[in-house]
Amino acid sequence: MALPVSPLAPAGFPALPVIPGVRFATTNCGIRYKGRDDLMVALLDPGTTVAGVLTRSLTASAPVHWCRNGLAGGRARAMVVNSGNSNAFTGRAGEAFVRATVDAAAALAGCAPEEVFVASTGVIGQPMPPDAIARHLPGLAGAFREDAWEAAARAIMTTDTFPKAAVRTARIGGTTVTVAGICKGSGMIAPDMATMLGFVFTDAAVAAPALQQALAAATGKSFNAITVDGDTSTSDTVLLAATGRAGNAVQADADDPALADFRRALDEVMIELAHLIVRDGEGATKFVTVRVDGAASDPAARRIGLAIANSPLVKTAIAGEDANWGRIVMAVGKAGEEADRDRLRISIGGVLICADGMQVPGYDETPVTAHMKGQEIDILVELGIGAGRASVWTCDLTHGYIDINGSYRS
Amino acid sequence: MALPVSPLAPAGFPALPVIPGVRFATTNCGIRYKGRDDLMVALLDPGTTVAGVLTRSLTASAPVHWCRNGLAGGRARAMVVNSGNSNAFTGRAGEAFVRATVDAAAALAGCAPEEVFVASTGVIGQPMPPDAIARHLPGLAGAFREDAWEAAARAIMTTDTFPKAAVRTARIGGTTVTVAGICKGSGMIAPDMATMLGFVFTDAAVAAPALQQALAAATGKSFNAITVDGDTSTSDTVLLAATGRAGNAVQADADDPALADFRRALDEVMIELAHLIVRDGEGATKFVTVRVDGAASDPAARRIGLAIANSPLVKTAIAGEDANWGRIVMAVGKAGEEADRDRLRISIGGVLICADGMQVPGYDETPVTAHMKGQEIDILVELGIGAGRASVWTCDLTHGYIDINGSYRS
Repeated sequence: MALPVSPLAPAGFPALPVIPGVRFATTNCGIRYKGRDDLMVALLDPGTTVAGVLTRSLTASAPVHWCRNGLAGGRARAMVVNSGNSNAFTGRAGEAFVRATVDAAAALAGCAPEEVFVASTGVIGQPMPPDAIARHLPGLAGAFREDAWEAAARAIMTTDTFPKAAVRTARIGGTTVTVAGICKGSGMIAPDMATMLGFVFTDAAVAAPALQQALAAATGKSFNAITVDGDTSTSDTVLLAATGRAGNAVQADADDPALADFRRALDEVMIELAHLIVRDGEGATKFVTVRVDGAASDPAARRIGLAIANSPLVKTAIAGEDANWGRIVMAVGKAGEEADRDRLRISIGGVLICADGMQVPGYDETPVTAHMKGQEIDILVELGIGAGRASVWTCDLTHGYIDINGSYRS
Repeated sequence: MALPVSPLAPAGFPALPVIPGVRFATTNCGIRYKGRDDLMVALLDPGTTVAGVLTRSLTASAPVHWCRNGLAGGRARAMVVNSGNSNAFTGRAGEAFVRATVDAAAALAGCAPEEVFVASTGVIGQPMPPDAIARHLPGLAGAFREDAWEAAARAIMTTDTFPKAAVRTARIGGTTVTVAGICKGSGMIAPDMATMLGFVFTDAAVAAPALQQALAAATGKSFNAITVDGDTSTSDTVLLAATGRAGNAVQADADDPALADFRRALDEVMIELAHLIVRDGEGATKFVTVRVDGAASDPAARRIGLAIANSPLVKTAIAGEDANWGRIVMAVGKAGEEADRDRLRISIGGVLICADGMQVPGYDETPVTAHMKGQEIDILVELGIGAGRASVWTCDLTHGYIDINGSYRS
């Protein structure tokens, strides 16, 4: 499928620095795509710690199950990621494929199988030969480069229309560290493209449990705060590897103030990556920020935000550039969280539309209509109940989404 | 909006018999639509009992709040229903409108205000003058007819492309009773069209608590088992009125075997009405039945069924006539209910596609592809966990849905 690049794509691929201890190689294994790479391998120096957040789907893929076990060890030496086939719902054949891939990668990296992490993204339910990737790995030995970010980001794409990456630096004590990552996804969750994968690397030295805590918190604010279609992938995987090569003192406590700037940088990288996925949402023409304030709690605010962001009626109205705030009222009402009609305030593009249980007196839709014609749509919902707040991001629901998903397998 | 009649519409409006004690009148109040009626009033003989099921939305409309209070009394003499404006999120103006409407209808029917039930369907957030309906009610006094079913069904339509009705007869003791109803809806829930309304009438004599129990059970199997877009209306209302004119002994116990045939008829009418809403789903080209069997419980089966029926990826694949069963696996996985990859079996059009954790050996997609080209799509998901089962119904997600909802207010 040759899709046009999303109108919401950034101007270009960012300049990413080398992360000492991280090298990439890519190649084509002929899994599904022709004329482009479909395999990305990252090799990590000895001593690298790892954290991960995986899909909660009860029909998770074989690679997800493998990673879940590996994360218990907290050490990573290789990541092997393919696009074109998610290896989900492939039974014992799927497990055999994972095992063959892991063994070949462990031989390549000179590590234990438990230090190899795998992720697959693509069609569900189609078994691959066990050696579909494994037979290509020995040949990659001389191909690893520290600066192959863009090739790596491109090799993991499915229906993505542009490669995605982000970078920040931070200070830990007196040491500057870098956090950089790539991701793919063109639905938060578009299981057949299955789906959202993210790989973030840092040269900071952080113990695995602290890394896990920081990653989990960052995921809540980023990948778990975006939605394209509300579907949940069988493959969603985010891995964060820390090589420790920057030379800072190893950080073992995620809540230590010394890690605060690192966590700020990690949050920013993760949020930027998550936004890039929304900007590449299938058929997207608008980037939508939904801010919820004054909810009973932060989780309540997030659920209300997602109810709005997932509503097909809200999303089609945005596609139609219609400031149909009644649908936002509806979505708040269905979220199941505490809300009070007479305290609810809704603003679009900074213009207050309703308050005190009804449209504000003298409401003039002109500036709101102008805002709806732009590419960046801002919705603010104030509940007036408590101090809970959250931001979630989504895109509009357009004919493009239906075109892409009506015939994905063909 | 002049939408073409849904390709899934039945051949014509059914022949409905008179329900003794029920009379209808319709007119145009100029609320939104021109050239068609937008008000339906049903008058009910003294002694009529009533039951109702109302939206659980936390931003429910003023009419919903009124009905909730009235149902406590269990008696109905009038129903007043308008299309074009849902009177939701209209604050005190909405409450004043309800009160004026109820008072005028009570004068017309010669009853207490608490015996008047109101429902409104249409755009959210636009206040109406208090007398928008009330001033038309006195003039209707001579217009009531027992046989005006089709006019009644048409007056409550919004984006519906055809009027909807169903009828069954049943025996209570030695007496034949009739259950007949009309409904509107073109999304389970399409709040701006806001949304699903149903009015069912019977000449059976049934006490209000038993009527309520029967209606709640029937709603679970019918209107609460369909979905077009997963959105929840601020106005959903189903009312069931029993005039008692058939002359059977009053039934006070919903679980009495004497009521079993009546409840069967009620279930069938409600399910047929619910199916008609799916068949008029916005942009629908396929009627989809999702049966779930072998779940941990009936509610678990229903939640899994709705996760499938609400998935934009499943619905777009059906629109594209693509037998993309991997998306059904995904939807089962995200439902949050107990599932086991290796026991899950998925069939489409009666053809078993996957079992034992993978595609069945020698799977031939030819008959499934042929089934996908039809208008009636059958999906069977067997969990192999327990005895829980449910059927839910939905339609496909097409360009038509986006066309209709991208510009509803304009």
